[in-house]
Amino acid sequence: MKSNLLSNIKNPADLRLLSEAQLPQAAQELRDFIIDIVSVKEGHLGASLGVVELTIALHYVFNTPEDLLVWDVGHQAYGHKILTERRENFHTNRQLGGISGFPKRSESIYDTFGVGHSSTSISAALGMAIASKLKGDLNKEHIAVIGDASIASGMAFEGLNHAGVTDANILVILNDNAIGIDPSVGALKKYLTAVKNGKNPKQNNIIKSLNFDYSGPIDGHDFPTLLKELNRLKKIKGPKFLHIVTTKGKGLQQAEENQVKYHAPGKFDASTGEIHLKSEENLPPKYQDVFGLTILDLAKKNQKIIGITPAMPSGSSLKFMMDEIPDRAFDVGIAEQHAVTLAAGMATQGMIVYCNIYSTFLQRAYDQVIHDVALQDLPVVFCLDRAGLVGEDGATHHGVFDIAYLRLIPNMIIYAPINEIALQNILYTVQTGLNHPIAIRYPRGRGVIPDWEVKNFGHYQPIEIGKADCLKNGTKTAVLSTGTIGNNVILALQECLNSETIAHYDFSFIKPLDIKTLHEIFSKFDTIITIEDGVVNGGFGSAVLEFAAASNYKNNIKNLGIPDHFIEQGTVEQLQQLCKIDVKSLINLFSNGAK
Amino acid sequence: MKSNLLSNIKNPADLRLLSEAQLPQAAQELRDFIIDIVSVKEGHLGASLGVVELTIALHYVFNTPEDLLVWDVGHQAYGHKILTERRENFHTNRQLGGISGFPKRSESIYDTFGVGHSSTSISAALGMAIASKLKGDLNKEHIAVIGDASIASGMAFEGLNHAGVTDANILVILNDNAIGIDPSVGALKKYLTAVKNGKNPKQNNIIKSLNFDYSGPIDGHDFPTLLKELNRLKKIKGPKFLHIVTTKGKGLQQAEENQVKYHAPGKFDASTGEIHLKSEENLPPKYQDVFGLTILDLAKKNQKIIGITPAMPSGSSLKFMMDEIPDRAFDVGIAEQHAVTLAAGMATQGMIVYCNIYSTFLQRAYDQVIHDVALQDLPVVFCLDRAGLVGEDGATHHGVFDIAYLRLIPNMIIYAPINEIALQNILYTVQTGLNHPIAIRYPRGRGVIPDWEVKNFGHYQPIEIGKADCLKNGTKTAVLSTGTIGNNVILALQECLNSETIAHYDFSFIKPLDIKTLHEIFSKFDTIITIEDGVVNGGFGSAVLEFAAASNYKNNIKNLGIPDHFIEQGTVEQLQQLCKIDVKSLINLFSNGAK
Repeated sequence: MKSNLLSNIKNPADLRLLSEAQLPQAAQELRDFIIDIVSVKEGHLGASLGVVELTIALHYVFNTPEDLLVWDVGHQAYGHKILTERRENFHTNRQLGGISGFPKRSESIYDTFGVGHSSTSISAALGMAIASKLKGDLNKEHIAVIGDASIASGMAFEGLNHAGVTDANILVILNDNAIGIDPSVGALKKYLTAVKNGKNPKQNNIIKSLNFDYSGPIDGHDFPTLLKELNRLKKIKGPKFLHIVTTKGKGLQQAEENQVKYHAPGKFDASTGEIHLKSEENLPPKYQDVFGLTILDLAKKNQKIIGITPAMPSGSSLKFMMDEIPDRAFDVGIAEQHAVTLAAGMATQGMIVYCNIYSTFLQRAYDQVIHDVALQDLPVVFCLDRAGLVGEDGATHHGVFDIAYLRLIPNMIIYAPINEIALQNILYTVQTGLNHPIAIRYPRGRGVIPDWEVKNFGHYQPIEIGKADCLKNGTKTAVLSTGTIGNNVILALQECLNSETIAHYDFSFIKPLDIKTLHEIFSKFDTIITIEDGVVNGGFGSAVLEFAAASNYKNNIKNLGIPDHFIEQGTVEQLQQLCKIDVKSLINLFSNGAK
Repeated sequence: MKSNLLSNIKNPADLRLLSEAQLPQAAQELRDFIIDIVSVKEGHLGASLGVVELTIALHYVFNTPEDLLVWDVGHQAYGHKILTERRENFHTNRQLGGISGFPKRSESIYDTFGVGHSSTSISAALGMAIASKLKGDLNKEHIAVIGDASIASGMAFEGLNHAGVTDANILVILNDNAIGIDPSVGALKKYLTAVKNGKNPKQNNIIKSLNFDYSGPIDGHDFPTLLKELNRLKKIKGPKFLHIVTTKGKGLQQAEENQVKYHAPGKFDASTGEIHLKSEENLPPKYQDVFGLTILDLAKKNQKIIGITPAMPSGSSLKFMMDEIPDRAFDVGIAEQHAVTLAAGMATQGMIVYCNIYSTFLQRAYDQVIHDVALQDLPVVFCLDRAGLVGEDGATHHGVFDIAYLRLIPNMIIYAPINEIALQNILYTVQTGLNHPIAIRYPRGRGVIPDWEVKNFGHYQPIEIGKADCLKNGTKTAVLSTGTIGNNVILALQECLNSETIAHYDFSFIKPLDIKTLHEIFSKFDTIITIEDGVVNGGFGSAVLEFAAASNYKNNIKNLGIPDHFIEQGTVEQLQQLCKIDVKSLINLFSNGAK
């Protein structure tokens, strides 16, 4: 067992030179390699450990990259990346200029489809399979590997519903480990659990009802079983479905035992699995915890408050409320569309629903926001966590479009708190009687007030809807910021030259705009600079331009924000530098250009 | 049978005064009433005829409006409207200032949830049911009536998946008539057909697998069966599912025999069912037919071309290609999310995919456009029919947000042809080698060139990407239009005073903007007027403002378009008047303000 197999595997062709008997050792080495790197470099751990055998078996049995392999979501694709020409770069995972944490077409021919958001794999693989058939590639296989949390999302059902009536060569592999980031939920999960426990006779099979050749459930960690079944399926044409059972975190005891924590554990000890705890003393709170603690506190006093999360109880910190008030806090699974319309239905009955969805995932429920909430002017409270640049998760996950795509919807109020106090106060305010939908967007990570909880928690102050605040006076230039990027402005103004000439306004309300204050600003200052951690096209800055045009102001206006291209991974600060909205760029701008 | 029952029914309480034996007559009268009005006033016919018995039975058995009834989509809700205090206003259906063609909360207490887009009913009803439980209303029933086409959409599955693990009082009624607007498709449809034909043993039941109390299939036109089953279900708590079988168009022979045509037949003879054919001579073509005929022509010559529609083969006219080249033209059912990612998958394999989705329904696949297409810069061709104001379908269906919500997406090209020749030419151009995604938006209804097909069809001219055209010179003011609303500008300039001072530019390309031409315009003209049949907030006009600000131009700029509130139903011309983008408003503006 000492020989090093992995170091000789550059790509799947090398893997296929191994004997079947060598595969368990290759699996052990791959697992160790993932653990070694992720323990130091951080990233997603549990999902990839769970599919080590599957990953090896797929590349061993199928002729990748000719056969096309699509990983759903992509958290589980580290093993795949390492086996497909990226072992030596794997230490750059999720870093600026390094490899992406998710499969990405521009990175490798083996990454057939870029992923990050869930439940796209069946549709994508089916599209490839139909294309292959039309091109006469009748022997090509097209494989979607999808987890039990992802397959419960509506989009995956749509893909299955179509695939089942085609004769396309598609193999859907359900990687059933009963967990996404948090434990899976819903009726389908319950059904799958019954199937695994032998409680459902096989003929009573949802997947068979959808016209698939179904097999399983089989042990996804057992090579002989896996290889035999994949080799059998390889010879069958048309839509096929293999149900495998795996353990998330497989091979690292602590990761198996605490699957939520080890989804993305941060730095840890590779041998013991022990997570390196960072001292949280004197750190400001995470915004997600400000949300989670505040909704719990408010819900204790207001019986109408309901919390909803689509599959992010831990990430959103709605978990606090789910633990204490389970009948009013719901994890609906990866079902953003349902989450929003469920909230709308509850709102018709007078409930005050906080629907917490990561900014990037609200894109999944855009029509529901427009058609089911805003059109009926229902006062649903959208809490958009992970708004703005999210850092290492990269292009698929930045929440930079929300201001622009929400601003065009009639009836919507949009609020971006500058800090944790403002976030808490708006969460308080909306349940005192709001007659319109509101989106509250706040970033990943921590706030700016270390002793927030001690000093400020629960000291609720109502916020006047639509009111901007002057944070600093000036004479020539006014900087209008929205959201937490305003803290960069505050820091830059402390260090730049000419700071006495520059005023700073906090436009937490992107909609409605504070027209009165805007008139004052446009009357007083020559130059207006807007800044947001969202796309410039159509964003907050555009709203200010629309105001200026409608009011016939001729001031100089400069709009800062995310430019019109997709932003890759890196630390938030690195990415802010790229977009020139970091503190240093602002100091330069304020000192030089903005006189 | 001569007594008139319907005229004594103002609301369901009156209906409940009838004996069960009287219900068939009430049904006949209701059916006649619907036929009489719709034959003259137009609207959706077949769906409402198919649920006459169900509508009566539901209001008869359940205690509406206390029990909450949600109609999915709402095409089938005419009978419901007539029985719930809107009989006397029903002749104003779909007219400006009249009642909406869809259930609408602000219109009636019996309309518990506004609909128009499909597959929302289960989520909405479940939200209501959970709210009722929390409020202690333990005996309230919450009913979602959903068709077999709508239930195959992913969002409906998400609702079922959640409902199945709750103890909420929700009754889902599957109205299975094997057709939406066009015949239903997909594996679930195939399965349901087998169930109806007795070919699937009942224990093999998808719905039961999702934890519902399932009953059916039963005859949805037979009162004794319906009443018995609804009365039985009324006593059962928790999630229930009733599968009923109906015939779309029931009671009007021609509507039963030609269900697609009689979905919304226009004016017809109430006694014979004969549709009043309008002479199409000398009429310009429908834009949908320009698309349908052109893609067929192009696909005959280019084997890489694929067409996709989510459930709109007739409405999009992709039907032409589906009939002649069925292996490359796909109706995927009401599955916009899947449609887009399927197209992306095909595009990775080099296919040129025209994904035809109504503008308002692309909202359903917004994340897929961003995450699966644009982020990977795949050259999918989005053909957005029914863009702009759609007229009588009203607020749920106007395609007025697309410019603004697409403009913020990196890599997207956005094109709005001014007429049918431009539409045909862009459809031609995109298959000659485009490396980015493009959205081509065009309106409902007809073009402006009566002899288009004779004179112009197939005379393809390549279009230069990103180029604006000067249609008319001027001296002081430049009007920049995008899309077919430019024809209003052309007409207005023919009639206004001072027309010699006003130039007109066609900015078919909203993105990329023609920067060179914009510099010329801003250098030459004092005043710039932008006009679009989309929302002003974040739209084409905003893009021009962003250009002006970035280039430091100080011209007067006025943005015309759809204001920041939802627009109700009416004729397109009436609605253009409300938005001041009709010809007359433009004449006034050009003659007075825009000097």
